[in-house]
Amino acid sequence: MKRYHWLFTLLLTTTFSYAQTPPTGDDGYRLWLKYDLITNVPKRQAYAQAAQFIAMTGNSPILKSAADELQLGLTGLLGKTVPVVTSAAGRKGGIVLAVSAGAGGSAMNNEGYQIAINAGNIMISGKTDAGVLYGAFALLRQMQTGQPIDRLSVTSSPRVQYRMLNHWDNVDGTVERGYAGQSLWKWYELPERIDPRYRDYARANASIGINGMTVNNVNASARFMSAEYIQKVAAVASALRPYGIRVYVSVYWAAPKTLGGLKTSDPLDPQVRAWWTAKVKELYQAIPDFGGLLVKANSEGEPGPQDYGRTHADGANMLAEAMKPYDGVVIWRAFVYKADPNGDRFKAAYDEFTPLDGTFDKKVIVQVKNGPIDFQPREPFSPLFGNMPKTPLGMEFQITQEYLGFATHMVYEAPLFKECLDADTYANGKGSTVAKVIDGSVHGYARTLMAGVANAGSARNWTGHPMAQANWYAFGRLAWDHTLSSETIANEWVNMTLTHEPQAAKRITNLMLKSRDIYVDYNTPIGLSRPWTGVHFAPEPWQNRSPRPDWTAVYYHKADSLGLGFNRTETGSNALAQYRPEVRAQWENPETCPLPYLLWFHHVAWNKKLTSGRTLWAELCTRFYTGADSVRWMQNEWGAVKSAVDPGIYADVSARLATQQREAIWWRDAWVLYLQSFAKQPVPAPFKQPERTLDDVKQSVNLYLLR
Amino acid sequence: MKRYHWLFTLLLTTTFSYAQTPPTGDDGYRLWLKYDLITNVPKRQAYAQAAQFIAMTGNSPILKSAADELQLGLTGLLGKTVPVVTSAAGRKGGIVLAVSAGAGGSAMNNEGYQIAINAGNIMISGKTDAGVLYGAFALLRQMQTGQPIDRLSVTSSPRVQYRMLNHWDNVDGTVERGYAGQSLWKWYELPERIDPRYRDYARANASIGINGMTVNNVNASARFMSAEYIQKVAAVASALRPYGIRVYVSVYWAAPKTLGGLKTSDPLDPQVRAWWTAKVKELYQAIPDFGGLLVKANSEGEPGPQDYGRTHADGANMLAEAMKPYDGVVIWRAFVYKADPNGDRFKAAYDEFTPLDGTFDKKVIVQVKNGPIDFQPREPFSPLFGNMPKTPLGMEFQITQEYLGFATHMVYEAPLFKECLDADTYANGKGSTVAKVIDGSVHGYARTLMAGVANAGSARNWTGHPMAQANWYAFGRLAWDHTLSSETIANEWVNMTLTHEPQAAKRITNLMLKSRDIYVDYNTPIGLSRPWTGVHFAPEPWQNRSPRPDWTAVYYHKADSLGLGFNRTETGSNALAQYRPEVRAQWENPETCPLPYLLWFHHVAWNKKLTSGRTLWAELCTRFYTGADSVRWMQNEWGAVKSAVDPGIYADVSARLATQQREAIWWRDAWVLYLQSFAKQPVPAPFKQPERTLDDVKQSVNLYLLR
Repeated sequence: MKRYHWLFTLLLTTTFSYAQTPPTGDDGYRLWLKYDLITNVPKRQAYAQAAQFIAMTGNSPILKSAADELQLGLTGLLGKTVPVVTSAAGRKGGIVLAVSAGAGGSAMNNEGYQIAINAGNIMISGKTDAGVLYGAFALLRQMQTGQPIDRLSVTSSPRVQYRMLNHWDNVDGTVERGYAGQSLWKWYELPERIDPRYRDYARANASIGINGMTVNNVNASARFMSAEYIQKVAAVASALRPYGIRVYVSVYWAAPKTLGGLKTSDPLDPQVRAWWTAKVKELYQAIPDFGGLLVKANSEGEPGPQDYGRTHADGANMLAEAMKPYDGVVIWRAFVYKADPNGDRFKAAYDEFTPLDGTFDKKVIVQVKNGPIDFQPREPFSPLFGNMPKTPLGMEFQITQEYLGFATHMVYEAPLFKECLDADTYANGKGSTVAKVIDGSVHGYARTLMAGVANAGSARNWTGHPMAQANWYAFGRLAWDHTLSSETIANEWVNMTLTHEPQAAKRITNLMLKSRDIYVDYNTPIGLSRPWTGVHFAPEPWQNRSPRPDWTAVYYHKADSLGLGFNRTETGSNALAQYRPEVRAQWENPETCPLPYLLWFHHVAWNKKLTSGRTLWAELCTRFYTGADSVRWMQNEWGAVKSAVDPGIYADVSARLATQQREAIWWRDAWVLYLQSFAKQPVPAPFKQPERTLDDVKQSVNLYLLR
Repeated sequence: MKRYHWLFTLLLTTTFSYAQTPPTGDDGYRLWLKYDLITNVPKRQAYAQAAQFIAMTGNSPILKSAADELQLGLTGLLGKTVPVVTSAAGRKGGIVLAVSAGAGGSAMNNEGYQIAINAGNIMISGKTDAGVLYGAFALLRQMQTGQPIDRLSVTSSPRVQYRMLNHWDNVDGTVERGYAGQSLWKWYELPERIDPRYRDYARANASIGINGMTVNNVNASARFMSAEYIQKVAAVASALRPYGIRVYVSVYWAAPKTLGGLKTSDPLDPQVRAWWTAKVKELYQAIPDFGGLLVKANSEGEPGPQDYGRTHADGANMLAEAMKPYDGVVIWRAFVYKADPNGDRFKAAYDEFTPLDGTFDKKVIVQVKNGPIDFQPREPFSPLFGNMPKTPLGMEFQITQEYLGFATHMVYEAPLFKECLDADTYANGKGSTVAKVIDGSVHGYARTLMAGVANAGSARNWTGHPMAQANWYAFGRLAWDHTLSSETIANEWVNMTLTHEPQAAKRITNLMLKSRDIYVDYNTPIGLSRPWTGVHFAPEPWQNRSPRPDWTAVYYHKADSLGLGFNRTETGSNALAQYRPEVRAQWENPETCPLPYLLWFHHVAWNKKLTSGRTLWAELCTRFYTGADSVRWMQNEWGAVKSAVDPGIYADVSARLATQQREAIWWRDAWVLYLQSFAKQPVPAPFKQPERTLDDVKQSVNLYLLR
């Protein structure tokens, strides 16, 4: 990144204390909110001309956040302090923050913003102060990405109402599936100490329109329902509130027993209902804008209403009743599946939830993972989307890279998110995309939700891999507007975060856009998946022993002497019957099923010729080898932008790419050698048989199973 | 802290990129190596006069580290860049780094340094480049603490040879008993990525003379003996080597079986011996200056040579044989104890190890915790010290605050360390202090060692509690020179880290010096202890169920209707027989046993009048209440220095003190209410009965036992 201009530094030192050891480069802490001095002088002058003051009326904390952020950003971008004034009366050439019920007209919703030139000023208006805050960040983004601002006329409203991060963070500071250091939430220090990062976390989220977060893991601790922890959560909520972010808590279903001392947690038991009613009241007393409850119940060993012969709806509705007096929601996860060696986990959520459609309280949202299994590198969309017309379904994406290479693989996720959002469910005829189900337009949902499992932790750069910041950014931008393209978002992020040099920005954007397909190629091509038990780090396709059959690898890939893949057609599990005929028709025929999904739905013979013209075995080898080789290409591309990016970020990403390259070959070799033991064919030219044996690879993987 | 002077900032920006979000204060990252501009102009000018250049000959990486650090430090302290030159020939007014075999004469050892005025220059000399590095840091410390440097004549040698940190860090990034974020060592990123923090970690350690570190938990993972992890460890070693720090690895005893595939890990088995020999060779091939192995064996469920009917010496000697060709050591921990309901864990290490004295290979050092139990807030010294004349005993202190309030209690540990070091074992007559056993002067040990269980993690300020940085600092300073007083060290650290304002520095030093006694008073007064199973966070004196008897609370305090305390006299476990008669005589008589140790050795009746003039019950109450009240005093004292310290540090410490205050009362109430159920007496005036009941406290503790 550019060094601070000396003038800017000089100005800053009059205000702030710099207390760092001499850095060797950008440490990534500022994320995309960098606000470095604009080095293009005419552009900077033009911006400065239009941003001579910030006018803010009143003392709403959220408006103050907007003014503070504009001042911070403009001070950095323009190299001079822009004053905040209480009125723009008689002045021109400034920025005016204005809240008014009529702002933007009926086309703009409560959180939307309008930026327009008005009486010589840039007016940022919204129906609420949150809208103005989002507008302030949008104006800063215009400047950070070098867009003109002198003839601005922008109106934007979020397409989804609840735009949330889900933190899978535990009370001991660990983060389930976290690869970016410890949890951000310091429970042992709360409520007394408010870590200054809480505010920066809030700023980052508000800048991309996120308005809610759950503080704790869905595999929840009952502690969060105690008076002591409610005070701690309230302290976090206070730090996030000025940025329009509401706090939600994940629920441990058995809390009435383990914490409340009741004999049961049966949702129909009057004492249990009274316990939850009192608990929710206590939450709202401590946190007046408390967002609501997130529930993982009867899933992967977690307790739930089915322990008492009740349904998910019984459970959710009980909580909804407790929430009745308040402006909050109950978010119930659809991620459920039973250990059935002869079943198909793919079908579980649909089978469990579609019969309950129409029985949920209106405060309930059912949160559905994008695919039917578990955040695989590539999955078809969940068949629940489009099949729950009477129940608001929310989207659950995973931002943290559980199956996407932790913090050592560069995978830009917007294409993954978009692939699901743009998929057509045909629920209401052609064009009924998942996005339109989620945003309510297909079924007219009263509530709409998009949640992302967070990748932010206490790592100095928040996300471990510097490029993983883009996934947090992309999730927020898509939750706000799912029609944005992956390229647009990547290009914004690169310009805000990495470089303004056009060729380098273009190269990095291209690298990001290709990264997910490259990962899929060496990791799980042609519809393979890997939701195996364990740490989800190492290749282990031979894994066939586990506490439950659906936690083995062989359950999913079904490799045998004949071929590979899970038959989900009529002759198999018939999971395809859960989709609309238009979808089913394309996928049930192996000749028309797109190659990326082929092995999700078909058991294919090793020598079957695919639409690519290659046999399955040859196609698999081509993907594994080309994928792994492509990481070399990624390294080269990154090498080519060296002079355009900060040396610290450059070195960090370079090192991680080297690890990725090593691990990509590991994955390739593991799959190729294992599958070869069934396919019984040589690796086709021009690819070369791996140098190591299957036993070698198994040993290298077993290392990661040792304590 | 002082803000950077604008001139300094201006200069720095020509060299470094500042990439932080505007800080709200000092984030503590720089530890005590702050190098802020000296605001006292005459003093700064005097220093500048004497430090116009840094002369360094050759290209030894360690010498280069010394020159780099001097340049960094002087640039900061003096506000101008001081050049590094290759020769001081004909020049005066500079700093000369000189390595020469004769430096300092025979009074100075290989790692010692001499700082003296020579031909108009400040000459820093050492017999080795490491000595010069330590001298460079000593010179910087002189300036950081405002001492004159124009007539310097200092010679200093470390009194202990192996000055080490032990990291109890796991492969998954967690830290056992760590309260400062995740592990510093990023195993998933290594060996490709070298986190820039590794270098800053090395700088901090070198600045206080630490010359070794174990990278992994003593509850060790076998992974560290694999080729893959050896490469990772080698990468860490490369980052630390330029600062004279050698890397050691903790050993999982059963690695020959679990990793090597052998049928046994019997130390007398030829295959096992061959495996270790090959493994050590592999380690030295990757890390030529590898320090050695640290072993926790047959302790708390860890495997060890006793699994095969062999002794600790058999195990240690087998490893020592493998180490024979190399300049490395085997460090064998004496922390062993069996689950015996009728035994006394106090006696275990002595009973196990003293019979082995004289049987260990000369490459072995036995590492002994300061006390006989487990890092309690106050323990008598371990009776092993002074009783193993033929076996080098190393000291193991715990810097991380496992039993000292995690990261929310301010406990300056130098008085704890000193209390042990200064204790007289009488092994060789009066004056045979533990320190003199450890430094080899009592028994003539050929090797000397002091290890500290590290409190450094990935938290931005390294240690969680900002004041806990002082414990890292104090450990290093005492490992170098155990004759330094707690006050001297505190005063150095405060001046380098927090403030130069004399009254404030004095106040903070005083606060630090009193903090440990205050903690003991509300936590474990008069010789109570609390090595109970669990997370070691919450008071749980009622705890009487556990997988093993010595992991309950009642095993240790022995509260009953008659009184309190563990009888370790002849009428009890007779653990006192392990001490020399002079020590025993003082402690076995309850009338002469110092109050701080009383309940360690005596079961005392509730109404027994103590040397304080109060009954046991009254004395206990006085301690618990006065201790908890003293945290208010600490808050007031800290409040009084507000204007003299950085606002970020001030706020951080203030918040943690508030938590400490709340938790001190929690401890007080838990002990008082529980012990009252045996003592059956009211809380004496002027103290007031706790407002809550014992059940209330139990409930609040049970919360921390919930998932």
